[in-house]
Amino acid sequence: MLSMQLPNGVEWTAHCLVVLEQFGSTQPVPSAALAEAYGLSPTYLNKHLQKLAANGLVTSTPGQAGGFALARPAQEITLADVVDALDGRGPIFRCTEIRCQGLFKERSAEIKASGPCRIASAMRQAEDAWRSSLSQVSITDLAAGVDAHSRQQLSEFIDRKHPEGEHQP
Amino acid sequence: MLSMQLPNGVEWTAHCLVVLEQFGSTQPVPSAALAEAYGLSPTYLNKHLQKLAANGLVTSTPGQAGGFALARPAQEITLADVVDALDGRGPIFRCTEIRCQGLFKERSAEIKASGPCRIASAMRQAEDAWRSSLSQVSITDLAAGVDAHSRQQLSEFIDRKHPEGEHQP
Repeated sequence: MLSMQLPNGVEWTAHCLVVLEQFGSTQPVPSAALAEAYGLSPTYLNKHLQKLAANGLVTSTPGQAGGFALARPAQEITLADVVDALDGRGPIFRCTEIRCQGLFKERSAEIKASGPCRIASAMRQAEDAWRSSLSQVSITDLAAGVDAHSRQQLSEFIDRKHPEGEHQP
Repeated sequence: MLSMQLPNGVEWTAHCLVVLEQFGSTQPVPSAALAEAYGLSPTYLNKHLQKLAANGLVTSTPGQAGGFALARPAQEITLADVVDALDGRGPIFRCTEIRCQGLFKERSAEIKASGPCRIASAMRQAEDAWRSSLSQVSITDLAAGVDAHSRQQLSEFIDRKHPEGEHQP
């Protein structure tokens, strides 16, 4: 069992942000509709979406016609933002400065002065490469991969969930 | 609390591999000595080192003069190997093909035929960047960062643990 795995909320909310891209920043999409569209748990999805709201990626409008909408342009929201919102910004590798423990405890200051631990530096560099790759992919990029048929299905489905909405006759 | 974090065994064993580099492939270093050198739990460290052995990074020699030694040249063991040995080779991001659930269930085959999900692809690309960075750092590179004083301390300490060893007068 892999201990280093992203929470499933990352997958769920990344797909939801792509849906929200389609509906813009002015038409809130209810959390329940997003859950139903993808067959997800409404309770858990709502919890995940609240994390996006707390991190300024989406706005949350309460009430009957309420829901979630993008808080800023889709090209300014990246997968790195989604990961940060769901899983925090902490490092993947925790350095506990082992090189200054045990035998080396008394020389701790001298060892630290010689520069950062190479193991920690290499781990951080790899994390930077991962995060940099994620930060180059925006919601706009992801939305471009959704086929026209799926977009139409979503549009009709969300409009039905907003009977008072402007898209309804 | 970050859910995506490497197990602490990665830090522990990376440092141990750097020590083993110093003692070569013919002088096994006892697990208990490695634990004492860095002030680590002998039981947990031994468990972690067994994973390295199971993954072919170190050899394990039983008995009084036994211990762990590098199974191959230090420049052929990378941080990616250490992470794989301790945490498995599975993906960090689990794609459950949400795009084919709920509303889209009936069009699952059509959607999959249109190509891989862009979210999953972008996540995999970022993971590749991370792993590629880790695979460029060998135990030789890491060992070059250990100061001469620490190497000497280690050498004297390990020799004391091997009273029958060749380095002892």
